[in-house]
Amino acid sequence: MTDLPRFGAGLWHFASYVDRYAVDGYAPPVTTLEAIARAGEVGDLSVVDLNYPFTDGVGIDEVKDALAAAGLQAIGITPEIYLRRFSRGAFTNPDPAVRAAALGQMHEAAGVVRELGADYVKIWPGQDGCDFPFHVDHRELWKLAVDGMRELAGAHPDLRFAIEYKPREPRVKMTWDSAARSILGIQQIGLDNVGVLLDFGHALYGGESPADSAQLLIDHGLLYGMDVNDNLRGWDDDLVVGTVHLTEIFEFFHTLRKNSWEGVWQLDQFPFREDSVEAARLSIRFLKALHRALDELDVAALQEAQSRQDALAAQRIVQDALLSCMAGNR
Amino acid sequence: MTDLPRFGAGLWHFASYVDRYAVDGYAPPVTTLEAIARAGEVGDLSVVDLNYPFTDGVGIDEVKDALAAAGLQAIGITPEIYLRRFSRGAFTNPDPAVRAAALGQMHEAAGVVRELGADYVKIWPGQDGCDFPFHVDHRELWKLAVDGMRELAGAHPDLRFAIEYKPREPRVKMTWDSAARSILGIQQIGLDNVGVLLDFGHALYGGESPADSAQLLIDHGLLYGMDVNDNLRGWDDDLVVGTVHLTEIFEFFHTLRKNSWEGVWQLDQFPFREDSVEAARLSIRFLKALHRALDELDVAALQEAQSRQDALAAQRIVQDALLSCMAGNR
Amino acid sequence: MTDLPRFGAGLWHFASYVDRYAVDGYAPPVTTLEAIARAGEVGDLSVVDLNYPFTDGVGIDEVKDALAAAGLQAIGITPEIYLRRFSRGAFTNPDPAVRAAALGQMHEAAGVVRELGADYVKIWPGQDGCDFPFHVDHRELWKLAVDGMRELAGAHPDLRFAIEYKPREPRVKMTWDSAARSILGIQQIGLDNVGVLLDFGHALYGGESPADSAQLLIDHGLLYGMDVNDNLRGWDDDLVVGTVHLTEIFEFFHTLRKNSWEGVWQLDQFPFREDSVEAARLSIRFLKALHRALDELDVAALQEAQSRQDALAAQRIVQDALLSCMAGNR
Amino acid sequence: MTDLPRFGAGLWHFASYVDRYAVDGYAPPVTTLEAIARAGEVGDLSVVDLNYPFTDGVGIDEVKDALAAAGLQAIGITPEIYLRRFSRGAFTNPDPAVRAAALGQMHEAAGVVRELGADYVKIWPGQDGCDFPFHVDHRELWKLAVDGMRELAGAHPDLRFAIEYKPREPRVKMTWDSAARSILGIQQIGLDNVGVLLDFGHALYGGESPADSAQLLIDHGLLYGMDVNDNLRGWDDDLVVGTVHLTEIFEFFHTLRKNSWEGVWQLDQFPFREDSVEAARLSIRFLKALHRALDELDVAALQEAQSRQDALAAQRIVQDALLSCMAGNR
Repeated sequence: MTDLPRFGAGLWHFASYVDRYAVDGYAPPVTTLEAIARAGEVGDLSVVDLNYPFTDGVGIDEVKDALAAAGLQAIGITPEIYLRRFSRGAFTNPDPAVRAAALGQMHEAAGVVRELGADYVKIWPGQDGCDFPFHVDHRELWKLAVDGMRELAGAHPDLRFAIEYKPREPRVKMTWDSAARSILGIQQIGLDNVGVLLDFGHALYGGESPADSAQLLIDHGLLYGMDVNDNLRGWDDDLVVGTVHLTEIFEFFHTLRKNSWEGVWQLDQFPFREDSVEAARLSIRFLKALHRALDELDVAALQEAQSRQDALAAQRIVQDALLSCMAGNR
Repeated sequence: MTDLPRFGAGLWHFASYVDRYAVDGYAPPVTTLEAIARAGEVGDLSVVDLNYPFTDGVGIDEVKDALAAAGLQAIGITPEIYLRRFSRGAFTNPDPAVRAAALGQMHEAAGVVRELGADYVKIWPGQDGCDFPFHVDHRELWKLAVDGMRELAGAHPDLRFAIEYKPREPRVKMTWDSAARSILGIQQIGLDNVGVLLDFGHALYGGESPADSAQLLIDHGLLYGMDVNDNLRGWDDDLVVGTVHLTEIFEFFHTLRKNSWEGVWQLDQFPFREDSVEAARLSIRFLKALHRALDELDVAALQEAQSRQDALAAQRIVQDALLSCMAGNR
Repeated sequence: MTDLPRFGAGLWHFASYVDRYAVDGYAPPVTTLEAIARAGEVGDLSVVDLNYPFTDGVGIDEVKDALAAAGLQAIGITPEIYLRRFSRGAFTNPDPAVRAAALGQMHEAAGVVRELGADYVKIWPGQDGCDFPFHVDHRELWKLAVDGMRELAGAHPDLRFAIEYKPREPRVKMTWDSAARSILGIQQIGLDNVGVLLDFGHALYGGESPADSAQLLIDHGLLYGMDVNDNLRGWDDDLVVGTVHLTEIFEFFHTLRKNSWEGVWQLDQFPFREDSVEAARLSIRFLKALHRALDELDVAALQEAQSRQDALAAQRIVQDALLSCMAGNR
Repeated sequence: MTDLPRFGAGLWHFASYVDRYAVDGYAPPVTTLEAIARAGEVGDLSVVDLNYPFTDGVGIDEVKDALAAAGLQAIGITPEIYLRRFSRGAFTNPDPAVRAAALGQMHEAAGVVRELGADYVKIWPGQDGCDFPFHVDHRELWKLAVDGMRELAGAHPDLRFAIEYKPREPRVKMTWDSAARSILGIQQIGLDNVGVLLDFGHALYGGESPADSAQLLIDHGLLYGMDVNDNLRGWDDDLVVGTVHLTEIFEFFHTLRKNSWEGVWQLDQFPFREDSVEAARLSIRFLKALHRALDELDVAALQEAQSRQDALAAQRIVQDALLSCMAGNR
């Protein structure tokens, strides 16, 4: 059996959530340090991606200690450029002062990446985009998005910046909305320290084949990271991985292995009504089963079937591996 | 020209919002009384639908005074059975104690309807449903939903209860999810004081034709109320009405007029990043234009075209009315 | 191990197809008799649902002989009320003469059901509905749909009629579009020989939970039949079952077993570019694995988890059964 | 008032259609010459895009004569690389012999472009892609798509090739599926005679903002052509333009004008059950109204509103122009 990958999670997996209905939150607030402790409880996580700023009053040394105590390392830092101040956009805000403030916060996050020895600054510009027809000048909006990323990444040539694209939410239409568009934008940026964090669910509900998007990003040398979850293809539900799209998540990981992509298998889930530690444990139990299935997959036979584009033969091979993967587990 | 309808709005139109990203809110909190004052500023609103409970510390007499000062009446009361306590369901919560608490809150809301002389208790059970395959026993869930509504409405035979169905959000799958399912459930309830509040956007993104759903509800005597907004058919965006689906909102109101349905034209919008008073004003300006278009629509010719199911002839008639409706306005 | 169910298929599974692009067909035409022979080749099929009329020149005795030779029985007859003559509707056609012709063809199909000893007339009114906003008078359209079904079923009290609902295609909006709407319509029809054939994929892409729809139909005594396939939730792709939605098809069959529903497990697939016999064989191999998984499912533990609406516990139980089901097969 | 644009249509607008249900066709077959005559009847069309090969037995001289008689010119030629022979792919077919045959047909089409003096070869590779998870090796599939286009376009440096992307249908997942992916692919091709034909409906149901896609293509110098229609965002319905998405089609044409894009306004509609000449006339009547609305649009005020990303102000300006555009028409 091949070695297990390292597992990770966005630290928000262990937070509590609000939405526009449960405005008092699905659970009491969770601090950065508490979330780190919970991540540590999972038992199989090696790394976390941390939102920044941390909870009020929490300093970076405390975070370091908490990570160490939990047996975790930081893989990325995600600046919260989607809070109130940036609700009309971070890079694409019509107000230059707000754009500057957003950049300022991202520069700070870059510093935290250095201090924690993380791999990348994760950029998730969820408020960048528009909501209505005729809302914006599309050329101008895209220019702001690209120029801002160039300014940011250009200021930190020693670091890597991973853009996480998503079709929509909270904006009705997001600027960085797909794998192909992200690659285009990164080419326009023209720097070699900007890449993509591919979220399985974002690709899925954006109408992409996540495996195809992974391949495309790898072929452009841009797959800096990835995370997984699940949804019903109509929204970024951030459900527990392995609860809906078993075959497609298997194809996704097969594609990563085929390309010898050896990054962390990360979780980006929002267990609104579930225990977050248990949700992570169930996820990793599933991912381990999937890892076994990858070991059992008859790759040579699959490649032969794919060379003929023989969907039935490929499915037979896949079902043999996937639908037996839990057998040794019980 | 026919008389204008009365206009109304959900009071939440004038609130501020949070979502799972902008957890600090898109704007500072707005109290019940402030929201009423804003609704009054719009200038064309006659009624509002109020969330209950009101902001902490606000009593019913203050609300009455605020409504009077703003020139408004209450049309409905919407108990907030979707906050944290009920996040795993109100009617369908697995815990009987929570179900009882939810009913308790709805009984209180019924009292407020009486005190304010409103038309109905609006029931929006957004947390009733499920998220994952195998999450629930579907028969049991539906039984809880129906039995709970029967218990509630049966306790208040002097009042009317309007269920607002929606396909999903915050639950991945909601219990009362469509017009037809709601009618079925109301038949099972077997009481004559339960009906439906039809949200244009919910019908639209649920794959219904809102006009068809309105007709179906009217034919069952169940259209207690309606509200309007807009979206991109993939989510309940609650955009400003008239910004995307002009023809379908026109067909919706045509259907209401054809059936002599004379209720209030209500707004259910979430102007996350816009001024809420201005958003309401733009909406009503549009609805007035639509009302003019209804006056100008050649109904006899349209009926003749529809009797032949002649889509092209019908569209020609509709475009003549709809695309001229703003001409007199400038 | 429990006994295997009987397997079946729509005979069109073994036809060739055209669409609006490959107007010369994905393969040469296949006659009714050839399709029966192919169905027989699969080896595990007991019954088929036959389109009617048969290929020109093929008489009912030939069909009987072919079925006998292939070891098959007829479970249903599907009149082709969606060909050119009925392209503007069968029950809901604006022309009374065409409606009468459609009924005539369905009466003939009823006769064939008797002659072949089939279980039901399958009614799939794919051309009944509308395409554009303002296209039809929705009340009138629905009345035509309901009255026509009543006239048809009322004329054959000795037979059963199974309506197969679907959200859309070929009509942009179909009249019988969902489980709940179908139940409503059947209640309006008021006869006890009209029910529903539930297509897993139609429910899925209509935004229903197929398991929930099955439960609802069973609770109304209306689940006359069902068939399975798969899709990407955006269209009725009629892909091979088990290739995408493994968990949801498992929940669907679990729901049937829980209710002791013992009908035929039918295929409704369109293998446009695949060998139809091989596609059926792969499907049944998967369905047998799913049947094993049902045997292994810890139903008591699942019910306990569902009674608490504990999604994580339920998923753990489900994954144990589902992801081990192929293990004994290799 | 500005000059009207030239109007055009895909010749298939005037054909008859089959689909997988109405296999005998929605109307009797229409020959190339008959379709040209119908296009001429519309009265406002200047150009057509012709499928190739023409109807059996129809030579290019007859086509020239028919075009001249109808007062039409050819704008593009669309090789039918989606018929049976190519149903498993044209550029991406697993069989090299079929790929060669597809290229052969496209080379012929290039010749026809020269003979008819058309603007481009339109490449619509609808059968290129996949249907199932694990169906293909995604890298290999994309390589075949890109290499094949390079070989084709490289052989005809005097001509232009316009790729029409689309998310899906007939393939469940198409290779050239979005504006951004098409630009990426064209960059990989590395030739300056390959561009894009942007179909409004394809962008819309692919989750793009058609106006944004138009801007992106223009900014890359790749918008070779465009055509319009409408749909319900879930499928390529090819409905009559102006029947559903009035605001978004207006934004689309506003974007073209703003960029001084002066190509033909083409129709790509499938009036399955309507008179095709009447459908085209209704479309052009609408497009002329939209052209008037563009003249009336307060562009300076709109730009100012967009510079502030003020959605409400923008909508007010847009509604004033759009909802008055038919006033002068009655």
